[in-house]
Amino acid sequence: MRAYEVIRRKRDGQVLPAQAIAELVADYTQGRVPDYQMAAFCMAVFFRGLSEAELNELTAAMLHSGDVLDLSDVPGVKVDKHSTGGVGDKVSLALAPLAAACGVKVPMVSGRGLGHTGGTLDKLEAIPGFRVDLPVARFREILASTGACLIGQTVRIAPADRKLYALRDLTATVESIPLIAASILSKKLAEGIDALVLDVKVGSGAFMKGSGEARRLAETIASIGRGMGKKVSAFLTDMDQPLGRAVGNALEVKEAVDLLRDEGPKDLREVTVELTAEMLVLGRVAADRDEARRRVLAAIGDGRGFLKLCEIAEAQGGDPDALADPSLLPRAAVTRPVLSEEAGVVQALDAEAIGLAAMALGAGRSRLEDRVDPAAGLVVHKKVGDPVERREPLATLHLGEVTLEPPDTVEMRVRGAYQIGRELVPPEPLVRERLDGGGGT
Amino acid sequence: MRAYEVIRRKRDGQVLPAQAIAELVADYTQGRVPDYQMAAFCMAVFFRGLSEAELNELTAAMLHSGDVLDLSDVPGVKVDKHSTGGVGDKVSLALAPLAAACGVKVPMVSGRGLGHTGGTLDKLEAIPGFRVDLPVARFREILASTGACLIGQTVRIAPADRKLYALRDLTATVESIPLIAASILSKKLAEGIDALVLDVKVGSGAFMKGSGEARRLAETIASIGRGMGKKVSAFLTDMDQPLGRAVGNALEVKEAVDLLRDEGPKDLREVTVELTAEMLVLGRVAADRDEARRRVLAAIGDGRGFLKLCEIAEAQGGDPDALADPSLLPRAAVTRPVLSEEAGVVQALDAEAIGLAAMALGAGRSRLEDRVDPAAGLVVHKKVGDPVERREPLATLHLGEVTLEPPDTVEMRVRGAYQIGRELVPPEPLVRERLDGGGGT
Repeated sequence: MRAYEVIRRKRDGQVLPAQAIAELVADYTQGRVPDYQMAAFCMAVFFRGLSEAELNELTAAMLHSGDVLDLSDVPGVKVDKHSTGGVGDKVSLALAPLAAACGVKVPMVSGRGLGHTGGTLDKLEAIPGFRVDLPVARFREILASTGACLIGQTVRIAPADRKLYALRDLTATVESIPLIAASILSKKLAEGIDALVLDVKVGSGAFMKGSGEARRLAETIASIGRGMGKKVSAFLTDMDQPLGRAVGNALEVKEAVDLLRDEGPKDLREVTVELTAEMLVLGRVAADRDEARRRVLAAIGDGRGFLKLCEIAEAQGGDPDALADPSLLPRAAVTRPVLSEEAGVVQALDAEAIGLAAMALGAGRSRLEDRVDPAAGLVVHKKVGDPVERREPLATLHLGEVTLEPPDTVEMRVRGAYQIGRELVPPEPLVRERLDGGGGT
Repeated sequence: MRAYEVIRRKRDGQVLPAQAIAELVADYTQGRVPDYQMAAFCMAVFFRGLSEAELNELTAAMLHSGDVLDLSDVPGVKVDKHSTGGVGDKVSLALAPLAAACGVKVPMVSGRGLGHTGGTLDKLEAIPGFRVDLPVARFREILASTGACLIGQTVRIAPADRKLYALRDLTATVESIPLIAASILSKKLAEGIDALVLDVKVGSGAFMKGSGEARRLAETIASIGRGMGKKVSAFLTDMDQPLGRAVGNALEVKEAVDLLRDEGPKDLREVTVELTAEMLVLGRVAADRDEARRRVLAAIGDGRGFLKLCEIAEAQGGDPDALADPSLLPRAAVTRPVLSEEAGVVQALDAEAIGLAAMALGAGRSRLEDRVDPAAGLVVHKKVGDPVERREPLATLHLGEVTLEPPDTVEMRVRGAYQIGRELVPPEPLVRERLDGGGGT
């Protein structure tokens, strides 16, 4: 079927035959279908959606547009975690070594930060020497020997997704649940995993602002995953305010290390333990979630998680000394506090505004080709529900060598992110919902 | 506003500010907005539509993307006619000289045939020597001296529409009433007209298969036209079967000449007289439609329309002898009849199938860059309601020098276009609806 006909049928709400979707994706990947036809198709999908069969086919076509790793020779159940992205979300840095320390195999392919959200690859690269661009053979070796390996998407993994995502980003067709689901799963399934824990962030700093949409995405991904014989468990977790206190690459590595040393902020610990425990259950190294939680907490308490992080970092070229002594991580030459202009209780802390402030300090990028400054970022000292005095520090800015905005402007951004009032604010649950895995092998 | 933001807002059903639409069109025309963003925008418009203000702005932006003729120094009211395209629609060839003979100024910018529909430019070029690519100065001269001039869209008229139409044709975004309306009007208003008669074809051979959609298009165009100070009258006319009997360029010129000599087929005559009469009313050379009809019929009866066609043709380089003696027009070396395999009454004659058969014989083009054979085409001898005997000719094929399909296949297409049965078929009205002009100067 010609691309024109595929677009027209989708536009008119007709169901596309599997073959038509497979051809469209293959032809687009190989440049035989131009960007403008794919853009029209994506917008038609935005309005018309995709049936379950169409979505399974689209995901499969994107998955098979490149290499699909076969990790069956690596013993153990392979489980990954994917987060839809947030501010201060350094969970992967602690979760991967914790799960590996408990016996799960974690082949993790991550992304970079964009806009106000951070990315695991940028955080890992704040560890001096850490390489995320390893060849597949080395990835497999490290996974087998240490239990986890964290790399970036190679050009050979789901090239259709890489090309399509860049196009959607320019054509206002990112916000389509089926297209998001196919994008996430095609990449993750290419890693050769058996199961996936999905962390859908919800709130002001998340891609999904409302929980209805977040739930739909989680259910959609779980359903395609099941259709492809994989277990997928999904969580909806809070991103109304940043997770933890540190936002910025080296700052977040330090906070993840703190967590693995049984010291990190409570909210980061709670989310990390929940998600890691789910990986243990899916990875069949724990009988149930209670046992899994106990094992994860034990690996934090006795330092096995931290040692595993050092081991993985070293295997990937990173300097374990910088983990043992985070003062060896990149550090900003200039820091400055942001003082509160009023007294009261923090009513809200806009995660997106904090993410944009960190970006303005040099920690993030507005375009994929921009470079990040590993030392830049900020630490928030006050979070929702915390009391604050006048002239007490709300946050500390860590200025990058080059900032995108003058520090005074960033300071105003940070102050503007805080809403301070008189009300007591009861804590909200961090894990808002859990959708059960099931299905799969 | 960035193109991304314009797409997103339209996608989400928000109303766009005038400035944003003007910038989008200007940036697209000049290559600063890529095709893929415009394709996504067009698909969003397909689903969300455009408000009246947005549509006026889009039309104005497309109109002003190129030169806008100022014909105010040419005395008289300038009126053009536009047809949405059909099979055997040679109305313009007779209408322009008839209206001019009656004192209306007709600056006509036409298009070429594509797919199963014909185009006025291709028909005119079947007249030996006829030039449709005249410079604007010559267009103006001929209009002033003869009262009509028929040319093609120059590169300087509405370049935004030219570029956008090609894109829509490849991205399944042609079928959007606001986009069609803006496309038609931006070109027509660039001609410097005061009023427009719109012929929206409805039926199997038309772009609009149903009258609801056709009426909406007519109303939309009339409304934008009014907003821009122009009178627009619209007709919905039948295109369930071909108009007249001839389909193919030289064959249609001959049939138009027949009409101007008071000999043409009745249906062609009726539609031509109605549309031309409306031009006389809008052009203020007749007080009402009855007087206008009488004047048009008089110009047919006394041969002034025919003489005017010869005069226009000569001014545009065409050979008037070939109009006086149509045997001098390009003629097919080979013709063959299509005989009926059954006896009965013609119940239906699929105009689109006949148009595709003519195209297959060499009369049309499947892509804009294809060449047409002026001699190729076919003449239908039987139309809806006509009785037919077994082995009586239904049509005569005029084979082009190169045919796209074997003549046997074309013969089957033509036979397949006829539905022959036992029922008597009462004639349907040719002019299905008329929407009054009004507004304007």
